[in-house]
Amino acid sequence: MQEDHEGPWLFTPGPINTARRTKEAMLRDMGSRDADFIAMTGRVCERLLAVSGAGEDYVCVPVQGSGTFAVEAAFGTLVPKSGKVLVLVNGVYGRRIARILAVAGRQFTVLETAETAAPAGADVARALSADPAITHVALVHCETTSGILNPAEEIAAAVAKSGRRLIVDAMSTFGILPLPAKSVAYDALIASSNKCLEGVPGMGFAIVKRDVLAAASGHAHSLALDLFDQWQFLERTAQWRFTPPTHVMAALDAALEAYMAEGGSAARLARYKRNCEVLVSGMRRLGFRTLIPDRQQAPVIVTFESPADPRFRFETFYGHLRRRGFVIYPGKLTTAETFRVGCIGAIGTEQIEGLLAAVREVIAEMALTLAPAV
Amino acid sequence: MQEDHEGPWLFTPGPINTARRTKEAMLRDMGSRDADFIAMTGRVCERLLAVSGAGEDYVCVPVQGSGTFAVEAAFGTLVPKSGKVLVLVNGVYGRRIARILAVAGRQFTVLETAETAAPAGADVARALSADPAITHVALVHCETTSGILNPAEEIAAAVAKSGRRLIVDAMSTFGILPLPAKSVAYDALIASSNKCLEGVPGMGFAIVKRDVLAAASGHAHSLALDLFDQWQFLERTAQWRFTPPTHVMAALDAALEAYMAEGGSAARLARYKRNCEVLVSGMRRLGFRTLIPDRQQAPVIVTFESPADPRFRFETFYGHLRRRGFVIYPGKLTTAETFRVGCIGAIGTEQIEGLLAAVREVIAEMALTLAPAV
Repeated sequence: MQEDHEGPWLFTPGPINTARRTKEAMLRDMGSRDADFIAMTGRVCERLLAVSGAGEDYVCVPVQGSGTFAVEAAFGTLVPKSGKVLVLVNGVYGRRIARILAVAGRQFTVLETAETAAPAGADVARALSADPAITHVALVHCETTSGILNPAEEIAAAVAKSGRRLIVDAMSTFGILPLPAKSVAYDALIASSNKCLEGVPGMGFAIVKRDVLAAASGHAHSLALDLFDQWQFLERTAQWRFTPPTHVMAALDAALEAYMAEGGSAARLARYKRNCEVLVSGMRRLGFRTLIPDRQQAPVIVTFESPADPRFRFETFYGHLRRRGFVIYPGKLTTAETFRVGCIGAIGTEQIEGLLAAVREVIAEMALTLAPAV
Repeated sequence: MQEDHEGPWLFTPGPINTARRTKEAMLRDMGSRDADFIAMTGRVCERLLAVSGAGEDYVCVPVQGSGTFAVEAAFGTLVPKSGKVLVLVNGVYGRRIARILAVAGRQFTVLETAETAAPAGADVARALSADPAITHVALVHCETTSGILNPAEEIAAAVAKSGRRLIVDAMSTFGILPLPAKSVAYDALIASSNKCLEGVPGMGFAIVKRDVLAAASGHAHSLALDLFDQWQFLERTAQWRFTPPTHVMAALDAALEAYMAEGGSAARLARYKRNCEVLVSGMRRLGFRTLIPDRQQAPVIVTFESPADPRFRFETFYGHLRRRGFVIYPGKLTTAETFRVGCIGAIGTEQIEGLLAAVREVIAEMALTLAPAV
């Protein structure tokens, strides 16, 4: 995709490859209280809101830091101290939400499924009717631990039916798998600059229901992570409360421009789906097996089982690919030996084919025996 | 200083102008778990520690977000729930520390002096002996609200003598006015990438006494802002806990390279001092008056009194300068009409002279009457 690409290709869940023009937008210093940056903040927030499709009842609030900072800001601000959260866990990011709540002193209970299984709407409904103290449900849309896509619609329906509130970590699906606020009635969804939007890392944001946020004054356990306060300051001054990552914002602004030029969510999803299909079918031809059933696989990151061949060591495999200019990602599952390959970012099938050719070479170099799928 | 400068010149307290090569370091995407980035993290932390001059008893822990995020992380992690902080306040940043403590549920008391006056060691000593519950003292080294330099040495001596602990917000002095850990015995000092180090905004860091940090497990009120947890993860894996701002780090790495090539702290301080002197003497010749006495003025940002002439409106003055390519900064004082001009960043006397010429033109354009100093 990029003639002038520098450095290795990243097949990771983020930070990912970004377009040259996105990075070039960072070649300019901006005053954080200057009109140019104020306009940029407004434009970026408006576009993020448009990408979410959430409509007029929602606002976009940016948060400095990584996606996790925005997740903590959202839960700390939107869940009152008297609240209780049902956290749906099937991987690291669900577990992290539980940890955030524990540290922030919020009550929570966990509904855990296997890392390879999605929670069902019926399970959520049962858990909610069993515990009337629960006020909120926390859902990770795509759990990048495995790459599994959790069924947001049926979970949202169960949450709505029981009159509870939904907060969605949409970190790795925002921009490709929209959650229409009408059918998935969420209070907030949270994402970051450096996933499917193809910006650089350094900020997250939350798309929050305006009346819910307006009622959240004084909830937060942290000043820096107070989403209400951040929003109020933005509303009043059109500026960020504390020093914004101006260059990261400039990159996101350019990335959103490129996103729309590409054709928005549908076009980007189609590209990632092609990436994912070419990756999975190519790896299967080489003898690798995927962990998640195809129908639950998000076109974001694919978990492959480590080959049974005792000569396979991930570090060696990684290093050989790295020397060829391809960065893959370690596994994060607690239950199986795996590694992961991302399909998002400014890459296309050409890069996936390049990676597959490199994997084939590395298999030979490591003298690995893999049983090709029949 | 820069032939290929784009956009206006920033005379702000940060984000500031950065060198072209610093920005160009961001033209590369890095995998956050890849060896190159791991090495960069190690190198940057080592260099920050070296710049601090703190020695082997200290560690450097980076924090995603802005400087305030690092300040909140340091206080939230280092002050136990049973602690109590004496916060020295003579401006916005001292007040912000008090707010952070209030939100995080830490006890504190404020010793406030006028925005134009520094707290004295004797005042601190008195406050400490009056309240034995106080465990920590919070000091802002240079309060950018006014540009005043607070006397760290005498305050540190008072704190040490009374057996309390010192935490210093060194945001806008780090890299030019070293606080030798021997004479200013601090538990932690906190700074950010985008001030005197001339990196881009998006991260802060804390230089922390190792044994103090090692004893701070479980103190933090926030997961994302848990400095202990961040440090432990770095120690164990050499990686950041949560997605790091890889491009911001690459810029800081390049900025530290440039910092050393320039001659380190002494050379940078000398340049900023020249900037400050040329600025102040030039503005005085034009009839402006500074707020802070010269001996207390840090060469970081200078507060000027707004002219008495009723035709002076800051927004108009700002706009005229902005159109000429110069960004100045609004005042932040509660007690006087002022504006501010920064002297830090990748600028030299050439840019200061350029600004002064523009100010002279704008005075004429606005038909302002200023009484030149005698």
